[in-house]
Amino acid sequence: MRKLALLLSIFFCCCTHSNAQQSDDLMFRKIADEVLANGMAYEHLRVLCKDIGPRLNGSRQQAAAELYTLKALREMGADTVYLQETKVPHWVRGQMESALFFNNPKKGSPLRICALGNSAGTGPSGIRAKLVEVHSFEELDALGEKGIKGRIVFFNVRFNPKNVLTFQSYFETTQYRWAGPSRAAKYGAVATIIRSLSTVVDDYPHTGGMAYNDSFPKIPAVAISTRDGDWLSKARSANPSADIWLRTTCTTLPDAIGHNVIAELRGSQFPGEVITIGGHLDSWDLAEGAQDDGAGCVQSMELIRVYKALGIRPKRTIRVVLFTDEENRGSGSAAYTAMARTEGRQHIFAIESDAGGFTPRGFSLVTDSVRLAKLNAWVPLFLPYGVYGFLPGSAGADVESLRELGATVGELMPDSQRYFDFHHAANDTFDAVNKRELELGAVNMINLVYMVDQYGL
Amino acid sequence: MRKLALLLSIFFCCCTHSNAQQSDDLMFRKIADEVLANGMAYEHLRVLCKDIGPRLNGSRQQAAAELYTLKALREMGADTVYLQETKVPHWVRGQMESALFFNNPKKGSPLRICALGNSAGTGPSGIRAKLVEVHSFEELDALGEKGIKGRIVFFNVRFNPKNVLTFQSYFETTQYRWAGPSRAAKYGAVATIIRSLSTVVDDYPHTGGMAYNDSFPKIPAVAISTRDGDWLSKARSANPSADIWLRTTCTTLPDAIGHNVIAELRGSQFPGEVITIGGHLDSWDLAEGAQDDGAGCVQSMELIRVYKALGIRPKRTIRVVLFTDEENRGSGSAAYTAMARTEGRQHIFAIESDAGGFTPRGFSLVTDSVRLAKLNAWVPLFLPYGVYGFLPGSAGADVESLRELGATVGELMPDSQRYFDFHHAANDTFDAVNKRELELGAVNMINLVYMVDQYGL
Repeated sequence: MRKLALLLSIFFCCCTHSNAQQSDDLMFRKIADEVLANGMAYEHLRVLCKDIGPRLNGSRQQAAAELYTLKALREMGADTVYLQETKVPHWVRGQMESALFFNNPKKGSPLRICALGNSAGTGPSGIRAKLVEVHSFEELDALGEKGIKGRIVFFNVRFNPKNVLTFQSYFETTQYRWAGPSRAAKYGAVATIIRSLSTVVDDYPHTGGMAYNDSFPKIPAVAISTRDGDWLSKARSANPSADIWLRTTCTTLPDAIGHNVIAELRGSQFPGEVITIGGHLDSWDLAEGAQDDGAGCVQSMELIRVYKALGIRPKRTIRVVLFTDEENRGSGSAAYTAMARTEGRQHIFAIESDAGGFTPRGFSLVTDSVRLAKLNAWVPLFLPYGVYGFLPGSAGADVESLRELGATVGELMPDSQRYFDFHHAANDTFDAVNKRELELGAVNMINLVYMVDQYGL
Repeated sequence: MRKLALLLSIFFCCCTHSNAQQSDDLMFRKIADEVLANGMAYEHLRVLCKDIGPRLNGSRQQAAAELYTLKALREMGADTVYLQETKVPHWVRGQMESALFFNNPKKGSPLRICALGNSAGTGPSGIRAKLVEVHSFEELDALGEKGIKGRIVFFNVRFNPKNVLTFQSYFETTQYRWAGPSRAAKYGAVATIIRSLSTVVDDYPHTGGMAYNDSFPKIPAVAISTRDGDWLSKARSANPSADIWLRTTCTTLPDAIGHNVIAELRGSQFPGEVITIGGHLDSWDLAEGAQDDGAGCVQSMELIRVYKALGIRPKRTIRVVLFTDEENRGSGSAAYTAMARTEGRQHIFAIESDAGGFTPRGFSLVTDSVRLAKLNAWVPLFLPYGVYGFLPGSAGADVESLRELGATVGELMPDSQRYFDFHHAANDTFDAVNKRELELGAVNMINLVYMVDQYGL
């Protein structure tokens, strides 16, 4: 691997790196050794997934996860550890999700579905109506009220397998989950079904957030597993006038209280400059939230442990933030940004890991070209640990609004091939995460924070 | 991802690439689309793993796999498909592997073990002796005959977790599997146990090849699961004079017949120049041989399907070779190299995929600096598909001897973090392989062969 770094630094010769001193190389090695040999991220993830479980906003498990991580960060020796309180949505799934497709008017075939997060339930008796299948909003609009009214709309939009980055396929389809229900309700639909946003054909329905447009009725909305989606499409083609029946008993309760869990290492030279590293502690209720986003939380926590173990004193203040409510409404991020706006400190850098605990490949950043060039000059240092580029693009959902305060914001880019096999589904469990992949993500996150702390941006 | 290619080609500015024309970029995209949207590699892997199963040399499953892939390659439309016969070792495990550690002289604790490939059995009554634990050959040599004679030697050598490339840890420890038995027999040991060569602590013993030095007695040799290895080490420390009992009933039968499965696309301009791409069809008997190396076989087969689907006529002769007997003795590679030596063609390039069907990162090559620079000039074309470097280093075990004939030889370098979780163990099953990761490996293998075919080396 040393060879890799050497070779690429020869070939990619314009990546000269005045700051990339030998001392940084040695510190990268120390940090990596500490994480790979003594890492605690995987054990913390086991506790979050197996001992605590799904961490839906408003749930007891969310509260348990806040207390567990608060205690763990204190024990790691952070200078300050505290909770930032905020209101979080309190949507609950209920107990009676089911769906039947009535090929035979008296006997329906069961389908694997789950309600979308934030959606309204059908109530215990459910909704029965004819099904209309569309593959885009254009098709929906073309059908209009005449084709949609009184029906249940099935958005059967596939993940495009040709996108190498699976997030591209997600971005192309996620609008049907977030906005599909109200787009269909506009034409009088009584409910919507989306094909699960997944890379694989299997039996897991994938939930995820949606939001209603208040101008239209708030109709129930579910996801169907990809295998059942394929089946349903064929069954409907063979029998276009057959009914489908859906029942979901989800409902939204009054807001609950949630907390961002925050741990700080005070800056020794520039305590007023803040670097934020984090993930989000909440998850959907169907899964253990291992890849999304227990992984990002335990990777970020590892920074505190490693800094204390190696005796690194940061120049700037480093904050590990485990955000609440990334999934339903983003209230944790909003609360943190509001605090950042008024606390009289300078937020220079914020990075999140929320794309899974997979083997790292790079970082995506929202910044200017000068800073991006500075970051890319560090690539030779990162190559031995699997990171080969800093790209302009996106930032983690919880940190991107810090951009408004002048911070460079970004996110870890792990390999994306497996993420949507698990995302928001019941198979996002502890065993879906590989220990070494998780740890290498932590190594690169910590190394990046180390460099920004040492040299600024 | 397009952004990635663009950005890195700007930053890594000395990677100018005169050959990397827009037409190559388009062809790469076509090949990737074909594999990602219509790929058959995963289905072929399912058949090899689930319908056929473990493909130990000399087994019926090996013969079945040869026939299956022969037929599949014919149906894909290769110009020529044939079997190259060779003798292969015929080691069989037998039915009665077990081990007991006698903390109490009358009642032993069972241990999870498996015989090493090619090793001699203890016979049905087993071997009982005191245990001596060492952590290196130096420790073994220091103990000498006085400390070793009449004992069972336990090589308890851990994988070093600090190596980012797990293959480095494998190379550091594999000598204890290959050479440990004879090194211990030299001092009068009656059997050896190795800690499984694995990245994880779990219950799977990992087998793998070993070879006896004919100067010393051929003593039995087993691997113990890492968890049981940890337990055994503690139990022995607590009770150093306790006995251990091993029983293995493996034996080596007379050589059997095996075959390399070879499929050719004839070169349209330079049919006398040969490019070889392959994997090995044999596997250990404990596992389905999914990552090792069903993956490399089905990735290589995919080249024929893609070339025919896209109507690509190669300039040079391309050979897909599914090698027999990589695991026991390397007779498939030897037979192919012998043929290459005498067939009057020029072997210019040979590449193997035998490091698992994981997400690709690069290629390792044995070649000169001029050719390496030429290959690295193609990096910007490969970046959108996850490959970011061509490194000097190693080649697949089945193709490396073609170097003697002047060929540039190499191997695909997929991400290595998970490989040794599965390697040579019962959990190397079909479900350990992710479809998209497997396919991206195929994409990069095919793209590389495409470039070498178009431009030579």
